Amino acid sequence: MNIRMTVFIISKMLGVEGALLLIPAFVALLYREESALHFAVVSGFLFLIFLLAGRKKPGKRRIYKKEGLIIVGSAWILWSLFGALPFFLSGSIPSYLDAFFETVSGFTTTGSTILTDIEALPRGMAFWRSLTHWIGGMGVLVFVMMLTSLDDENSMHLMRAEVPGPEADKLVPRARTTAQILYAMYFVLTAVEVVLLLFGGMNFYDSLLHAFSTAGTGGFSNMNASVAHYDSAYIDGVITVFMILFGVNFNLYFLVCMRKWKEALKNEELHIYMGIIAGAVALITVDILHQYGSVLHAFRYASFQVAAIITTTGFCTADWNLWPEFSKAILLSLMVVGACAGSTGGGIKVSRLMILLKSIKQEIKRMLHPKAVTLVRVNGRKVSGETMNGVYIYFICYVMILLVSVLLVSVNDFDFGTSFSAVLTTLNNVGPGISGVGPVENFSQFSGLSKVIFCVDMLVGRLEIFPYLLLLSPELWRRKF
Amino acid sequence: MNIRMTVFIISKMLGVEGALLLIPAFVALLYREESALHFAVVSGFLFLIFLLAGRKKPGKRRIYKKEGLIIVGSAWILWSLFGALPFFLSGSIPSYLDAFFETVSGFTTTGSTILTDIEALPRGMAFWRSLTHWIGGMGVLVFVMMLTSLDDENSMHLMRAEVPGPEADKLVPRARTTAQILYAMYFVLTAVEVVLLLFGGMNFYDSLLHAFSTAGTGGFSNMNASVAHYDSAYIDGVITVFMILFGVNFNLYFLVCMRKWKEALKNEELHIYMGIIAGAVALITVDILHQYGSVLHAFRYASFQVAAIITTTGFCTADWNLWPEFSKAILLSLMVVGACAGSTGGGIKVSRLMILLKSIKQEIKRMLHPKAVTLVRVNGRKVSGETMNGVYIYFICYVMILLVSVLLVSVNDFDFGTSFSAVLTTLNNVGPGISGVGPVENFSQFSGLSKVIFCVDMLVGRLEIFPYLLLLSPELWRRKF
Repeated sequence: MNIRMTVFIISKMLGVEGALLLIPAFVALLYREESALHFAVVSGFLFLIFLLAGRKKPGKRRIYKKEGLIIVGSAWILWSLFGALPFFLSGSIPSYLDAFFETVSGFTTTGSTILTDIEALPRGMAFWRSLTHWIGGMGVLVFVMMLTSLDDENSMHLMRAEVPGPEADKLVPRARTTAQILYAMYFVLTAVEVVLLLFGGMNFYDSLLHAFSTAGTGGFSNMNASVAHYDSAYIDGVITVFMILFGVNFNLYFLVCMRKWKEALKNEELHIYMGIIAGAVALITVDILHQYGSVLHAFRYASFQVAAIITTTGFCTADWNLWPEFSKAILLSLMVVGACAGSTGGGIKVSRLMILLKSIKQEIKRMLHPKAVTLVRVNGRKVSGETMNGVYIYFICYVMILLVSVLLVSVNDFDFGTSFSAVLTTLNNVGPGISGVGPVENFSQFSGLSKVIFCVDMLVGRLEIFPYLLLLSPELWRRKF
Repeated sequence: MNIRMTVFIISKMLGVEGALLLIPAFVALLYREESALHFAVVSGFLFLIFLLAGRKKPGKRRIYKKEGLIIVGSAWILWSLFGALPFFLSGSIPSYLDAFFETVSGFTTTGSTILTDIEALPRGMAFWRSLTHWIGGMGVLVFVMMLTSLDDENSMHLMRAEVPGPEADKLVPRARTTAQILYAMYFVLTAVEVVLLLFGGMNFYDSLLHAFSTAGTGGFSNMNASVAHYDSAYIDGVITVFMILFGVNFNLYFLVCMRKWKEALKNEELHIYMGIIAGAVALITVDILHQYGSVLHAFRYASFQVAAIITTTGFCTADWNLWPEFSKAILLSLMVVGACAGSTGGGIKVSRLMILLKSIKQEIKRMLHPKAVTLVRVNGRKVSGETMNGVYIYFICYVMILLVSVLLVSVNDFDFGTSFSAVLTTLNNVGPGISGVGPVENFSQFSGLSKVIFCVDMLVGRLEIFPYLLLLSPELWRRKF
């Protein structure tokens, strides 16, 4: 294992976080808040680490899959540990564990909160809170890759460890260029949403924050009532559409930019993603109709909530805790499904679900024709045995982690719906759940141990298990470095 | 597909059910209940079917895996459809759907009930209800195989479709002899339990019924309060031990009979099964200590409930709905685990869980040493790729069925804990769940649609999915027979 290169890359990433912290410092300054100082202190400390360990490139630069997973796994934890400091130092979040929870929830684009009064947060802090979504959305590392210079081979190992979905593709031959293209599209989409929100009468600060949260499919709002605060059909509509857009595989936008419209629209995952959304909206609209009086009203709230949940954003405009159990069950199922691979959304991902369902179909065929060769195809291409195996193992780990987490969280003695949905919503990076963690509730009531478990679930969910699975291996720690 | 042979075997099985129905008819006669007549009528009708279609062996006798799955899949449904008739005709269960639910719950050894007053049941009916557990426990087909004569090759296809666990082994070269040995052990163990219960002061009728339910890991009691009715530490102890014994792979008892003690005790699945039981009992004992005062008391109730749940029997001596959430979460997890492969218990089975967890370990090794050849071993033997794949697909189907069922059942608008645990308990053939389907509750409050879903879940759970997966395939029905 190449320890020096690992430390070098991680230090570099901490330097980048130091730079990013200057943005909320600036915002705090603008609003003449003292917390500007706290951002500056943490930023300075991170620069120091960078100067000490992240400037001189080691001689042996080659890293492999293993190092990629370790770098990504520890980088996300370190970013969260340092990113939590401003909240804690400024006293905005008095407990460091709570601050860490909030930051992990930010970077992993979960959007679960321990805050009971969000609007009491200073503007600089609320800005940093939503910015973590935006940074986390595209992946801390893809971001760093764009800013710094890594060898192409090395970058791919990092990217594979971080980009959501069963397979990571490079759009163009160079990984760094791929990262730049992805970020450019991300930036443009975010900017367009900001403009559209401004049209709806939202002020610039709020627009920016909500666009950050939408882009990262995070869900932090600076309002206690989330997007319901604005009570505007236009704003609901804009955010609904953008949530759905950010849940689409970014490779498709790249195809559209290359004028390969047809190829983009023929994407199988996109069809199923859209189909699930349409189906869920239709069912919930009918189910909640009696609570909202008009079809249009019911449709507005159903579509916003469905988009917020399947893309794992977790904004809300309605308290679905008051909806019928069937609608709640649909929302919980959507949490598991999640968005498309290669998007900023969480969950199992539509493409993984496709592969899982197709492998069941394949098994049926095999039972009927024991001698026939059967293949699982996605978008007409054969899915390799290695990928299939990866998806199976991923799914098994996912369910096991869910089970163990629910078991551990149930120690709080909250009702089953609360414990179960709290784990489900953090593991899938959604944000709110049902019952005690419903959209108008928060995570402050859980014990310290439970909060740690939620942090682990959020990180494991965002990085899709494997990096942390590796870190858990005793063999890794027994080896001489 | 060999339609004639399929119909022949199924008719033969219905004839056997006709013969079995004479037992409760006799019991009813003994107690001078009119329901003897209803049993006799159904029995006669089944004999008629047998005489018409199950006597003359077709010329082409060969059947394959596909026919095996279809025969087993439809046989269980038909047995339940006819087995429900006495309940319905006698008016003991006025709704046929409810009677069908109760019979499916019996044959699949689930033990969920729609009865609100079990003690009001005539003795013949209660006897038949518990007898379905005993018959279902060892598998309707293994039973039939023992009684009738099938070719050896044919028998194995049927056995593989029905015996729980990832792999079905023959104990001895001939499948029929294997079935006879299994039934002999089953019979002896049941008889020993009856005797031990008689020692505890239980009357013969009750002893027989409770032994049937224990042996099949079913859980029907003829008392409203289940085993709690007797309030005897001795009876609790006997049933606890026998539940655990019936959750062990029967092959191990065969090894013991062959005086291969060492081999039996070295079985990996047995160690893990016992380990899980010990761990769960310890945790729950501590967790419920404050409710029971003494460690001994807490241990008695914890061990009974743990044994009842992990073996998927579902008897109860305590209302665990009143226990802390952590204990409830442990019980729910045990439902998923289930008993050992090759036992009468349900659930995923300990051996499948072992394979799933070992494949995660294998994946970690593969990440650390990409070029190393890694194998999953159970009991020192390599698990074949085909078996691994079967376990993966099984697990995926299991979770998908769970998810879809919860979605459909939530239409009842009961709380999440009720809907979720009702599906979990039926799919794993346990019996009771938590909240609205807790141990002192029943399934009568669900809608007709939900009851049908529970029936499907029970059957799918007992036959371990694949037979019904095949029946669902449109291709099967499109083919010319």
